[in-house]
Amino acid sequence: MLAGIDIGGTKTAFALGERQGDEIAASWRRATEPTQDASADLLRMADDVRTLLEEAGLAPGELEAVGVSAAGPLDPGQGVLLEPPNLPWHRAPVVGVLSQALGCPVFLDNDANAAALAEWLYGAGRGTRHMVYLTMSTGVGAGLVLDGRIHRGVACSAGEVGHVPVVWDGEPCSCGMRGCLEAYVGGAAWTRRLVEHTPPSSRVAALTPAGATPRPEQVVLAAREGDAFALSELARFNDYLARGIVQVAFTLAPELVVLGTIPTAAGEALCLDPVREQVHARLWPVIGDGLRIEASGLGESLPDYAGLSVAREGLARS
Amino acid sequence: MLAGIDIGGTKTAFALGERQGDEIAASWRRATEPTQDASADLLRMADDVRTLLEEAGLAPGELEAVGVSAAGPLDPGQGVLLEPPNLPWHRAPVVGVLSQALGCPVFLDNDANAAALAEWLYGAGRGTRHMVYLTMSTGVGAGLVLDGRIHRGVACSAGEVGHVPVVWDGEPCSCGMRGCLEAYVGGAAWTRRLVEHTPPSSRVAALTPAGATPRPEQVVLAAREGDAFALSELARFNDYLARGIVQVAFTLAPELVVLGTIPTAAGEALCLDPVREQVHARLWPVIGDGLRIEASGLGESLPDYAGLSVAREGLARS
Repeated sequence: MLAGIDIGGTKTAFALGERQGDEIAASWRRATEPTQDASADLLRMADDVRTLLEEAGLAPGELEAVGVSAAGPLDPGQGVLLEPPNLPWHRAPVVGVLSQALGCPVFLDNDANAAALAEWLYGAGRGTRHMVYLTMSTGVGAGLVLDGRIHRGVACSAGEVGHVPVVWDGEPCSCGMRGCLEAYVGGAAWTRRLVEHTPPSSRVAALTPAGATPRPEQVVLAAREGDAFALSELARFNDYLARGIVQVAFTLAPELVVLGTIPTAAGEALCLDPVREQVHARLWPVIGDGLRIEASGLGESLPDYAGLSVAREGLARS
Repeated sequence: MLAGIDIGGTKTAFALGERQGDEIAASWRRATEPTQDASADLLRMADDVRTLLEEAGLAPGELEAVGVSAAGPLDPGQGVLLEPPNLPWHRAPVVGVLSQALGCPVFLDNDANAAALAEWLYGAGRGTRHMVYLTMSTGVGAGLVLDGRIHRGVACSAGEVGHVPVVWDGEPCSCGMRGCLEAYVGGAAWTRRLVEHTPPSSRVAALTPAGATPRPEQVVLAAREGDAFALSELARFNDYLARGIVQVAFTLAPELVVLGTIPTAAGEALCLDPVREQVHARLWPVIGDGLRIEASGLGESLPDYAGLSVAREGLARS
């Protein structure tokens, strides 16, 4: 039996699953509620895992490995989460604390790699050899499955596709650089743009809850109703997303690019079809003919699989 | 003993080397002189290998494997060179003809992968785990060594970094697309630009042989003499090359990018130093601090190692 922990900025998902097979044996989610004391927070997570094992009628000794998925730079050798962007932790000893508390190997990976592994092992990417997963929510990142293995690169920092320049010296990005893909298609950047540009008369404004700022969700809803502003915003999003996929495809020639949250929510007609068309128009046939572009196969249940996938991959590697 | 054959558009290089170690036991080059009959041309190459073995005092039975490097799309499963851009061959059965003629396994790879392997096994990339080699002569391509293996992607078409758009809808490229890196830093594209833009009063024009068109070689020579036009041309070259390296670095986080012909000829002060500076200014420190950018370590002797490297890698894989 394996356990997975997906530590998000707001929610943490816990899941148990067999080393083989797709079944989630047990799962639950709770608010992350982090404190300044990472070790105490991690020990509480170990308790959550023990409770889940108990509820599933399993002894602690049946736990073979734990996988942890979290945002942010990490030191895989030390098993330490360095400076997570959404948590008040600093150099959190994830692997040390959890492996001691749970008495089994613990593997740690960043959220983009974990999501790529989850789609590859359980979702849209099953059976592929070369697959790229693009996280597309607040920020944009990639997990690269190449020749059936995650490519991590130096300092585990490969896959920062969100910061490839799509317009040289273009829009400022929250990373401090300019023209990054994320500055055009990241959810946070898009939200800032919507605050500035949404016409009060558009459906995007009408669909935005009172007192809130308009977000990509409202653009998708308004576009479904045919709102002109929403459709132009989505066309812009699709255009820049296609540029990002084109560079990945010429560089890596993957079989499959799986798109995360925003494209999956927008769906085939509003996002995937136009993106496919634009990408294929800018690729050589030898690369484009072998490339599929698909929505996430796991969607909302991805957090249940992310940590388990890290555990499976960690065991396979060790 | 391994044999390597590097089939270039004008010259073919033959070399013998041990499976371990860096020594070239014997080598020679001759004009490629291809005919329409690929099989006959390949049999002649097998004769060249036998002659080289004989001259080195070796029996044909001592040949363990042959590696072949050639430009162009290939079918690695069938061992067939499909439509080589510089040869009048069509679906040349390289592996079939040579393995039957020489009685040992034959491995075929494209020139970018072969050059990457050569630099990784014998040249600037020794000891690295993640290395990108950029061929930079007539065209621009990449060989990607990731986690100590060549990444080939679907249809062996990964590494087409020369066709990543660096300016969306920019300059037309000979591939039919627009804005490709190759349209800015490829030798053929640069030569076309020089024909149009070289001022008759510049040193570039003065250094160009009578009756010839100015080429990147003359730009490098004139830049060494401080010619303003040549320096502005090199600055432009370096700027676009840096853009290409930035996208590769954010995507793959390699330890090392090895630059091919033109940058190696231009050298540290005119090319490598300014490129390093521009690349590092546009990368995050976590990626930039781990990245070196170097000239080819093999230079003119690269063809001697290209085929041998394909043989070594092929044996290691099989």
